[in-house]
Amino acid sequence: MDFSNIDLEKLQQIQTEHRRTIHMYPENAWTEFRTTSLIIDKLEEFGIPYLYGKDVHTKGERYGLPGEEYLEMCYKRAVEEGADPGRVEKMKGGYTGVIGILETGRPGPKTALRFDIDCIDAIETQDPEHIPNKEGFASKHPNLFHGCGHDAHNAIGIGVAYILKQNLDKLCGTILLVFQPGEEGLRGGNSMADSGLFEDVDYIFAGHVGGKPMGVIVTGASGFAISQKFDLHFDGVPGHAGASPEVGHNALLAAANAAINIMAISRTSKGFTRVNVGTLNAGTGRNVIPSVADMKCEVRGETQEACDYMAKRLLEVAEGAAKMYDCAFNYKIVGKASGATCDEELNKITEEAAKMTDGVISIIPAGTGKGGGSEDFTTLMHKVQEHGGKATFFMIASNSAYPNHHDHFDIDERCLGLGSRVFCNMVGIINGIKE
Amino acid sequence: MDFSNIDLEKLQQIQTEHRRTIHMYPENAWTEFRTTSLIIDKLEEFGIPYLYGKDVHTKGERYGLPGEEYLEMCYKRAVEEGADPGRVEKMKGGYTGVIGILETGRPGPKTALRFDIDCIDAIETQDPEHIPNKEGFASKHPNLFHGCGHDAHNAIGIGVAYILKQNLDKLCGTILLVFQPGEEGLRGGNSMADSGLFEDVDYIFAGHVGGKPMGVIVTGASGFAISQKFDLHFDGVPGHAGASPEVGHNALLAAANAAINIMAISRTSKGFTRVNVGTLNAGTGRNVIPSVADMKCEVRGETQEACDYMAKRLLEVAEGAAKMYDCAFNYKIVGKASGATCDEELNKITEEAAKMTDGVISIIPAGTGKGGGSEDFTTLMHKVQEHGGKATFFMIASNSAYPNHHDHFDIDERCLGLGSRVFCNMVGIINGIKE
Amino acid sequence: MDFSNIDLEKLQQIQTEHRRTIHMYPENAWTEFRTTSLIIDKLEEFGIPYLYGKDVHTKGERYGLPGEEYLEMCYKRAVEEGADPGRVEKMKGGYTGVIGILETGRPGPKTALRFDIDCIDAIETQDPEHIPNKEGFASKHPNLFHGCGHDAHNAIGIGVAYILKQNLDKLCGTILLVFQPGEEGLRGGNSMADSGLFEDVDYIFAGHVGGKPMGVIVTGASGFAISQKFDLHFDGVPGHAGASPEVGHNALLAAANAAINIMAISRTSKGFTRVNVGTLNAGTGRNVIPSVADMKCEVRGETQEACDYMAKRLLEVAEGAAKMYDCAFNYKIVGKASGATCDEELNKITEEAAKMTDGVISIIPAGTGKGGGSEDFTTLMHKVQEHGGKATFFMIASNSAYPNHHDHFDIDERCLGLGSRVFCNMVGIINGIKE
Amino acid sequence: MDFSNIDLEKLQQIQTEHRRTIHMYPENAWTEFRTTSLIIDKLEEFGIPYLYGKDVHTKGERYGLPGEEYLEMCYKRAVEEGADPGRVEKMKGGYTGVIGILETGRPGPKTALRFDIDCIDAIETQDPEHIPNKEGFASKHPNLFHGCGHDAHNAIGIGVAYILKQNLDKLCGTILLVFQPGEEGLRGGNSMADSGLFEDVDYIFAGHVGGKPMGVIVTGASGFAISQKFDLHFDGVPGHAGASPEVGHNALLAAANAAINIMAISRTSKGFTRVNVGTLNAGTGRNVIPSVADMKCEVRGETQEACDYMAKRLLEVAEGAAKMYDCAFNYKIVGKASGATCDEELNKITEEAAKMTDGVISIIPAGTGKGGGSEDFTTLMHKVQEHGGKATFFMIASNSAYPNHHDHFDIDERCLGLGSRVFCNMVGIINGIKE
Repeated sequence: MDFSNIDLEKLQQIQTEHRRTIHMYPENAWTEFRTTSLIIDKLEEFGIPYLYGKDVHTKGERYGLPGEEYLEMCYKRAVEEGADPGRVEKMKGGYTGVIGILETGRPGPKTALRFDIDCIDAIETQDPEHIPNKEGFASKHPNLFHGCGHDAHNAIGIGVAYILKQNLDKLCGTILLVFQPGEEGLRGGNSMADSGLFEDVDYIFAGHVGGKPMGVIVTGASGFAISQKFDLHFDGVPGHAGASPEVGHNALLAAANAAINIMAISRTSKGFTRVNVGTLNAGTGRNVIPSVADMKCEVRGETQEACDYMAKRLLEVAEGAAKMYDCAFNYKIVGKASGATCDEELNKITEEAAKMTDGVISIIPAGTGKGGGSEDFTTLMHKVQEHGGKATFFMIASNSAYPNHHDHFDIDERCLGLGSRVFCNMVGIINGIKE
Repeated sequence: MDFSNIDLEKLQQIQTEHRRTIHMYPENAWTEFRTTSLIIDKLEEFGIPYLYGKDVHTKGERYGLPGEEYLEMCYKRAVEEGADPGRVEKMKGGYTGVIGILETGRPGPKTALRFDIDCIDAIETQDPEHIPNKEGFASKHPNLFHGCGHDAHNAIGIGVAYILKQNLDKLCGTILLVFQPGEEGLRGGNSMADSGLFEDVDYIFAGHVGGKPMGVIVTGASGFAISQKFDLHFDGVPGHAGASPEVGHNALLAAANAAINIMAISRTSKGFTRVNVGTLNAGTGRNVIPSVADMKCEVRGETQEACDYMAKRLLEVAEGAAKMYDCAFNYKIVGKASGATCDEELNKITEEAAKMTDGVISIIPAGTGKGGGSEDFTTLMHKVQEHGGKATFFMIASNSAYPNHHDHFDIDERCLGLGSRVFCNMVGIINGIKE
Repeated sequence: MDFSNIDLEKLQQIQTEHRRTIHMYPENAWTEFRTTSLIIDKLEEFGIPYLYGKDVHTKGERYGLPGEEYLEMCYKRAVEEGADPGRVEKMKGGYTGVIGILETGRPGPKTALRFDIDCIDAIETQDPEHIPNKEGFASKHPNLFHGCGHDAHNAIGIGVAYILKQNLDKLCGTILLVFQPGEEGLRGGNSMADSGLFEDVDYIFAGHVGGKPMGVIVTGASGFAISQKFDLHFDGVPGHAGASPEVGHNALLAAANAAINIMAISRTSKGFTRVNVGTLNAGTGRNVIPSVADMKCEVRGETQEACDYMAKRLLEVAEGAAKMYDCAFNYKIVGKASGATCDEELNKITEEAAKMTDGVISIIPAGTGKGGGSEDFTTLMHKVQEHGGKATFFMIASNSAYPNHHDHFDIDERCLGLGSRVFCNMVGIINGIKE
Repeated sequence: MDFSNIDLEKLQQIQTEHRRTIHMYPENAWTEFRTTSLIIDKLEEFGIPYLYGKDVHTKGERYGLPGEEYLEMCYKRAVEEGADPGRVEKMKGGYTGVIGILETGRPGPKTALRFDIDCIDAIETQDPEHIPNKEGFASKHPNLFHGCGHDAHNAIGIGVAYILKQNLDKLCGTILLVFQPGEEGLRGGNSMADSGLFEDVDYIFAGHVGGKPMGVIVTGASGFAISQKFDLHFDGVPGHAGASPEVGHNALLAAANAAINIMAISRTSKGFTRVNVGTLNAGTGRNVIPSVADMKCEVRGETQEACDYMAKRLLEVAEGAAKMYDCAFNYKIVGKASGATCDEELNKITEEAAKMTDGVISIIPAGTGKGGGSEDFTTLMHKVQEHGGKATFFMIASNSAYPNHHDHFDIDERCLGLGSRVFCNMVGIINGIKE
């Protein structure tokens, strides 16, 4: 694509500003109220029509939706921090995210570009050398942090919107700019996939920042683990820790044993695995035998068999641990991701597009090996591939010295403009008017 | 004491109402803003002078004071729920509790009666048969519950104030009505003891509700465990649970191991012991290796040697567990209670007073055995005994089917009036004008 | 009793020699083949008739009898180390111990004196300062050690036999010298009690060495814990630890979790408790998922309720742990001891007897408090008390710097003669001919 | 190779008999006294010269050599079960295994064929359907079992010796028949590699039975994990479990915590991993606080980095666990295996040889993926490859319904003859006289 009509420096500035305000007020799955409102600001500024609220989501169950009380708190906070109250009203119930729609008016393929926008539940470092601290845009929300670079994905999407809108005359077909909520925990993809908007998508692609150095693009990144997410709950009986401790059934100890032994589930020959007990919260007060405990866990596997093995063992362990302390146990499945395969045709297009992109120094095809990461994008890939569409996923190196989710994770903001241009070049190849 | 001038039925009604509103809005250690404000309402109504705020507390460290953010929340809540804003202002910083002062104007002993007023950190049952549910005065504060009967102690104190004020002409010396905050966690006693108000107290006593049936009084209850309270903190390193779990140092697993092995600290021949890990909160999000964990624990011992053994082992275990997961570990001591001995002279007076009290069916001297309970009152007992004063503690059976701290704990409200009359009879014996 | 006809120095020498050879070749429960044979040597030398083998044991189940293979090994070892092969033959099947019978021919009470003779399963220290090392009589049997002083009890019994035989003309009635096997683990007492020999015993008493200094006798020591002993067994499924670890069901991990959480069973308000997992043996080889695990445990309680609570929780924990690793679990109860009360009449006689004994410097009645120790003697006490007989137990201080079962435990051999003389004085009071 | 001069039925019978007597009397690493003696019987019968004892081993340290006491027991047992006492004498100190040497007298390459002969530490099933039970040749040694098919490897080696000796005139160069001890635990390979006999070997190969169906050969099997083996030891302090439990430092609990948390070491993105705590033995007796504990563990990794990570974490965990119980901790590295690559040239020869072999139905090249298995043969591969020789490893399917190390593992004995013929065909290709 020809970027000669674009003021790339101004764009970089728009993207940087957008990324920083998003970084400063991170919002996690189903609560991206301000985040979505700010994206809509930009779409309106650029003159791009959009859908949001219930229009972009499933009528069915949305995985891992928070309770009403937490959502309430997030509505208020979003408005206090600058979200448009009317838009927040329309997103109530956690219907976050927005899809911008670029109609060229010319026949051609329907292409979807997906940008995920939620943050992770984690604490950003207070290290003064960490750039967000140095330059004053570190997270202001306790235990929320853009530690996986979705603030960058968001800003890349904004850049893509800016460029494509100004080059619409060179394109045909339709382009969807999918700003997806709830990627973490594998929650939002399934809901958007079931919205009815992806039934006739021909091409879908997404990218992810991380790693180093600047200028590397990895094509066809598909080694995603299959994953399942669980919320576990243990119910015991309280008692006075001094006067009659024997009355209690200790839910904290049941959960602590479950946590350790879940991490000790055997490796399997059926493929690599991952397992995490991300949070454990138990007990009510110091001198009361703890009667409740909650844990958020997940398992991953290279193969369905490996993932199923982990899930089965996780529940066996939790049930046994509950039994040890005569506690009741129950669980909920709150997220799922399957594996996926990138289409070779789109991998080639990624490579071609990257080659045309100024600043790209190296293009590497992803190895056949797999990492432990899961990616909610796989749900959208499946949606598109099941009716014959094509899908791919690529990595945009962002000069990141620390791994994703590390409390020092950060990006080189030059990846914002570069990333947008790779996306636009892909669109140019797919939706460019063939003369 | 002669109660002929008292409308006992009306008093029972005042006490029941007071107990129920306190029960409905429970406040825990250092946050008894509304509770204190309501007691002051009554003292003013009865015409009893009082001291509160910084006047009744130490200038030094107060154990286990919550953070400013939590206190802020409690100020607001108290005012919303009916506390006097001016009084809350004066209690800011957690200076809760109040001491009513009955000056007879006649020479005589200085007697202190102590009533503790804080709730426990626990969840009240939702069983519809539980009377506070049935009659609509169950706790409205999440995870706060008057499960140890301090709402009853508070109402007994109100009853004592009511009676003594109207019988002041039959008494000599001074009587202090000590409404103490923060008994749970052994926090408030030390602070009031150091306020300067107890230097010349001749007699001090307190009572505790619980057990059954109605009408039993147990004198000289002194089998208190020596206790120490700890906050433990583990710091690890976060990491992406899928992509690079090996980067993490798992603070949740360090804490879970510490919790289990702290509970497994050996029994000792140096006396009975207790140990509890009351709460464990760890991790930030499901797919992040947990990098932080916090635990609230306590140990108790029949003897100083037993308690010291438990404390030493607790720290060893926590340090070893931190080392297993290469986490940093630190702790804070947030509460302490020592043992105490009831003075035989006051035990006798308790017995005599109980005998005079209508409704008392049986008076039992406490055995020499000890239970596991600790009692912050021991700090005040020591304060008074160290300059030659006398102290005792007694139990007021309250028809309670469940043990203290159980989520079904409740009292038969007839214990309120009965309890007040036992207290007043003791004062009558000690401070009665000898003719 | 008048000891003027006894060469006390020679006696001390006999006892010391006997104690040392017993110490050097310790034998544990049901394998006291050489030990019994050496006692019989002495009884024969002194001319005292005796019963042994099946004649002194129950026809029913004997708790914790070892397997045939282990018994075989012990038969051989005993003979190699000097046991009489004919006697060993008669004890085959683990029928160890012997009862010497002193018939005076004169009417009078039947009195039983009990001396336990088994060692503990423990490793004696190699500290060169430990006297058995210094003087060359330390244990030659791996993991067997007279760390509870039963070698001394044995030698005290020999001394009593020596003295009483020579003073038989001053006595009336019958005296049984009960050399009991299997005190540790609470195994032998029950078997001897059911032998039919204790149905008409009027008085029974026993003593125990330990503590310091020399010359103290503690009368009426009855603070025994109630106890139950368990063997736990976990069965899993093996698998190759590298090639297919997921095939395995890990019995070692089930047992390890059971062990830790059994130690973490809550303290109880029903009385002090003890719990121990004494041994854990699991797995077959380094690179095989461990498919078997065995544990030897015990619980103790001050009250029956406390002991029952511990036993119930122990089984719950073990079952839950087995479930966590999908292992089969089974258990066997291998020992039991109940509490007991010393008869005041016999306590008085102990005191009187101790007063007459040269070398006794202080006589202390046992406190009402209880220690955590259990004592298999309680079974014999009950047997005698249930038909109206009297029983007591006393402590013989032995200048022991280390507690019983410590790897440095040792006794001052002067306690051997002194102990014998206290026993004989008691017999003198009970069975002395009243003129 | 032309087998027309061989009575293949008679050979199958010889191999079956040999395999079964070896199966019945399994011997583990460094104790293959009878096993070696029986191999020598055959070599002598066939007229093949050989080296054994110290001549085939390193002068340096041999990993995981058992203690003298255990070796003593094994000497005796071997002789009782038919080993030649003179040969056992020469193997004393654990110098087991033997190398048969076929000198053709003609110039040509030096080829080594390796057959491993030790059993695993595991219990054979008692299932009556298991053929060794059905036909009466199940293991007679407790906790020893040919569950990895080395009895088959041994018999294949005997078959190779039988065939090659009778075809020596068709061959050139030298052929070594290496009967290696201690493959399990990765112990014997290193010792033989350092014996000086492999310095000029041109080709080395080995095979492994397992899997199904009969007739499949997998060439170039090289996905071995890198591995490290550890013996861990914890030293605590004993104490009486009832009377003074607080005196003890509980080594059993330290070890149990170490075991669970070693299994819970995080997965890593650096490659697949394995970990096993194969055995845990702790404590001395039921009522003594356990003062000693021993564990046999191993870690494996797909990459050196992954294996190093596991090893580092294992030691951190063990140290932390020891600290929790104030125990001393030490460890020994008792085995190591590195990865290895099969030479393509030899893979081709395996394929060619398999094609010529009657009964082979399918030849599959090994995938690039890796399993978790480690193979001590890698040490010999490295030895040969480091001076420019070639090496490979192949799999001989043996109709085995259960995975290796499962307690039901068994082979179809037809794999014995077939396996020998594949080996001989490889030798025929390499050492055949080129005309």
